This record gives sequence, structure tokens and C-alpha cells, in this order.
Amino acid sequence: MSIDRLQEKIFAMENPSAFGLDPLPEYIPPDIMARHIAEKGETLAAAAAAYEEFGRGLIDALCDIVPAIKIQSAFFEMLGPEGVAAMKRAAQYAREKGLYVIGDVKRGDIGSTAAAYSAAYLGRVQIGSAALAGFDFDCVTINAYLGSDGVRPFIETCKKYDKAVFALVKTSNPSSRELQDLSVGTEKLFETVGRLLESLAADTVGASGYSCVGAVAGATYPEELRLLREKLTGTFFLVPGYGAQGGAAKDVAAAFDRHGGGAIVNSSRGIICAWQKTGRGGRDYQEAARAAALAMKADLLSVLPR
Amino acid sequence: MSIDRLQEKIFAMENPSAFGLDPLPEYIPPDIMARHIAEKGETLAAAAAAYEEFGRGLIDALCDIVPAIKIQSAFFEMLGPEGVAAMKRAAQYAREKGLYVIGDVKRGDIGSTAAAYSAAYLGRVQIGSAALAGFDFDCVTINAYLGSDGVRPFIETCKKYDKAVFALVKTSNPSSRELQDLSVGTEKLFETVGRLLESLAADTVGASGYSCVGAVAGATYPEELRLLREKLTGTFFLVPGYGAQGGAAKDVAAAFDRHGGGAIVNSSRGIICAWQKTGRGGRDYQEAARAAALAMKADLLSVLPR
Repeated sequence: MSIDRLQEKIFAMENPSAFGLDPLPEYIPPDIMARHIAEKGETLAAAAAAYEEFGRGLIDALCDIVPAIKIQSAFFEMLGPEGVAAMKRAAQYAREKGLYVIGDVKRGDIGSTAAAYSAAYLGRVQIGSAALAGFDFDCVTINAYLGSDGVRPFIETCKKYDKAVFALVKTSNPSSRELQDLSVGTEKLFETVGRLLESLAADTVGASGYSCVGAVAGATYPEELRLLREKLTGTFFLVPGYGAQGGAAKDVAAAFDRHGGGAIVNSSRGIICAWQKTGRGGRDYQEAARAAALAMKADLLSVLPR
Repeated sequence: MSIDRLQEKIFAMENPSAFGLDPLPEYIPPDIMARHIAEKGETLAAAAAAYEEFGRGLIDALCDIVPAIKIQSAFFEMLGPEGVAAMKRAAQYAREKGLYVIGDVKRGDIGSTAAAYSAAYLGRVQIGSAALAGFDFDCVTINAYLGSDGVRPFIETCKKYDKAVFALVKTSNPSSRELQDLSVGTEKLFETVGRLLESLAADTVGASGYSCVGAVAGATYPEELRLLREKLTGTFFLVPGYGAQGGAAKDVAAAFDRHGGGAIVNSSRGIICAWQKTGRGGRDYQEAARAAALAMKADLLSVLPR
């Protein structure tokens, strides 16, 4: 099962973290961007090629010490179809290098359209006699505001193709309070969303003890993270918000179960922009990312049960 | 202002409807799909070319009688980057033909990532000295579960580039009840979401009386539609669920204001799959779509104030 594989990889590498490939033009070492612009002009294709080179370089630098990559689709979509093509190639390269690949796409729609999104990112589409993959991530993030009939098609695809999803439950941003923390009966909305998701996927729990529907729960809300860990015993957590957004290791500790499993913590800027702090103009972006990833690993392990 | 232009177009054409380009392989007339497969094999590129030809044909058939097109991104994303490129070309063609182009992408993320999505679909990205558009829709659908800091970047982009968004409030699917109808205080969650959105965009209300942040409210819930129309006087509605999903003209009547403005009703399968009911194997897909669109227009006008 997909989440079992992720959990095994995390334990084998002793590293419960993912690095986030969230490229913006200003996150790319200037030499890389300049070289592609010299070749292709000031075009979306040049930026897409720079994103891809940067992504491949980060994957090379991190694939033996970090178990997973979270690719932020928005930054690739910003470059139009060329960016989306670069994202697909970066995802394929990450899989070849053994990383567990999470597509951070946050899709969500009504039944038939949710089925199309799940086919796009996790499944296959039938063209004549051929069953073809649009993207083929290991896992994607989804938004459950539309209710269970927007989630079930993803679960069906997860079962068929051995994949997983992480649904937004309690997000890391400041205004996640506005809707997610509203009181509904005796609990808050995000708890209701979490319970709904856990119940939908209960029959997919694998050897790790977790189902194919994980939850996104931000490091910036440690109390809520603790509450969710207590209530959702069969739900694996993807924890954004560590590092640049303000979450510390002590904040994310509550996301883990008593064996130190059940969660993966993401850092994006803290790792991929580490080169901006070394004063070498980005020529050391791989070493800087590796050092930041190792520091994050040590920081997380310091708060986990051994 | 973008929504003002949409409203003017609707009044000028006397047609408050959009047609939804939601292609699945089985919605494409068999001759079109077969020709592209013969040329390019059973590939995603062949299907993408077929989607594009079908989309252009529908745009040609409808652009003088229907003011807007809603392009469902999921079905293009299902074909990977080739599909996304076909979507961009179809959107450009629709704009050239004078249609108001709504990208049904339902994106939503935290602040910096929401900014990237808004740049991708409505704004521009800076590459060196060039400001380039990834997609350049007139409008996109968004998901506000993350709260106001996930919506504000879209509003900023709307102001800067004269665009609009429709945020999910009360969706048309059966299980939209599960979360959207939860009681929060004295109202339901979807009402709270609707009020939040109306307040965020209050300073963008244009000549039409409506702001740049519209709401998606399904035809399948006429009572909720009536309630939202009463409460959200500055919010334009995009109404899915008419036709194949079960919504009738009498159900959508409540979405309109007393001048017959303030809403646009979408039909997808009812128009683009109309050829499946004429027994001519899809060779008449343009005429069938046009007849269905005219029937829908007459049906809607029959319930509106003149």
C-alpha cells in the first residue's frame, strides 16, 4: 500500500521529512536562470527549463537522505503548459531516483470531475486500447469542501493503482482559522472534515496502520495537530509550515504516533532556498540544500520517540 | 470591470448561459477521435488534438449565441501536459471569438501559492524583463476553504488585470450537504463562506452592481440559491447543475436579480453531448449543440423578468 511504502521509506532512512519543490523565479540560482534565458530568451520555456534543472539538481542532492518530495504545482502552472511539462518530467525523475512523489495540487471537484482529476494525477485514461498516465504521481493533495462524493473517486483510484492522497484538514496559513475553526456542534469544522475523511478510507488501512487518505495539518497549529493525532488514529499526516512559515520541531512532535510514525513534515523554502544564506550566489545550491535537509532531519529526530 | 463585461454581454445577447467544455474521450464524436488516433496513434497527444478540434468546433457553433464558455480543466489535465496545452489554445481561440472564458480550475492554496495560481490563470509572471501570461483566462473558479488569505491574492490580481473569480459556496453535487450545510451559529457553513467572500470583495463592485468575486451555487439546490440571492446582493452567481445534473429553469430562476441579471447558468453535457441523441454518430455535433443552446436560452428566458 502506498502509505505503507512511504512509512517504510521514512523508517529506513530515519527521516520523517519531505522537501518541497516550490520554485519561483527568484528561488532559482541566478546562473541557472541566466543560462536558460541566454538560450531561449525571456520566455516561459526558458523559466520552465531552469525550474527543471534546479529540480533535478535538488533531487540528485537529496534523494539518498530524504524519502519524499512534494512538488508544488502552482509554481509550475504559473509558466503555462511548458511549466506543467517540466513538472511532469521532474516528477518522473524523482521517481526514478527512488523518491516518494507527492503532487501538491489541492484538487477538488464533484464526482465525475474528481474522477478525472484522480485519473490525471494517480490513474490512467483510456485512449482507444491504450491506458495512459497523464502525470503518475505517488500521491496528491486534495480539497474535500465538496464532501464525500468528491473524495470517493480518489479513493477508488488509490485502491486500483496503489496510490494515496492527503486532504486539507487544518492548513498552516494564518486565516485557516476563519472557516476551519468554526464551531459545528461540539467540535470544530476541521475535526469534522478529519473524521469524515477517516471514515471514508477506513477499509484501506494497511500494514502501517494508516489508510490511503492522509490529512494535511499545519505545523503552525500545534494544539490542533495534537488533537487530530489523538482522534484520527488511522490517518497519516502531511505537515507543512515547518521552517520558513514558523513551525519548529517541538510544534510538529505532536503529529507523530508513539512509534515515531504516522507523519511526514515538509520544508520548502528552508531547503531549496538555503543557498540564499551562504553568500555564494547559488553555485552551492545542492550542498546548501543537503546541509539544510540534514539539519532538519536532526532537528525532527531530536523530538521523536526512538 | 470583468464582471460588468460579462453582464453586458449577457444582456446584449439576451442569454444568461455558458456552455461547459468538459470533454471526456466518449464525448468526442467518434470520427474526430479516430482521425487523430490514425494520425498520432493511441496517445495523449492524439486525444488532446481531438479535444481541441471538438472545442474549436463548438466555439465556432456557439460564439454568436452564447456569451461565455466554462472550460473544465480536469478533463484536459487528464491528458497530461499535452492536454493542458490544448486547453490553453482552446481558451485563446474562445477569446478571439469574443467569448468570456471561465477556467473551471477550482484552485485554492495558502497566500504565496494562491498568488502563484492567480498569476498563472489571470495575471502575469515576470521572467527577466518580460511579463508573460501562463494561461490568461477572463475568470477562474476557486476554493476558499483556506480562508481569506487564500482569496486575497486572487482579488489583487483581478484588480490589476481586470479579471474575476467564482468561489465555491454551495456546490451542485449530492454530498455538498455534508460539510457546506453544517450549522455554524445561526446559519449554515455555505452562508458564512458566501458572506466572507462578499465582504472581501466589497470594494470592487462595478457598474453592474457586482464585485470581482462571484459565487458558485448549484441549480440542484434552489432553496439555497434563493437564500444566497437574498443575502449576497453584491455577488454574481455561476450556476452549474442545469440539465444533465437535474436542475430545471424554475430551479435557477431564484439565482437572478429583479432585472434578470446577476447570474449565469452553465450546461456542459446537455450541450456538448447533444449529438449523442440525434442518431447521426456525431457528424452533426455543431448543429446539435447549437439547437441545445438555443433551447436552453429559451428555457431560461421563460422564467426571467423581462
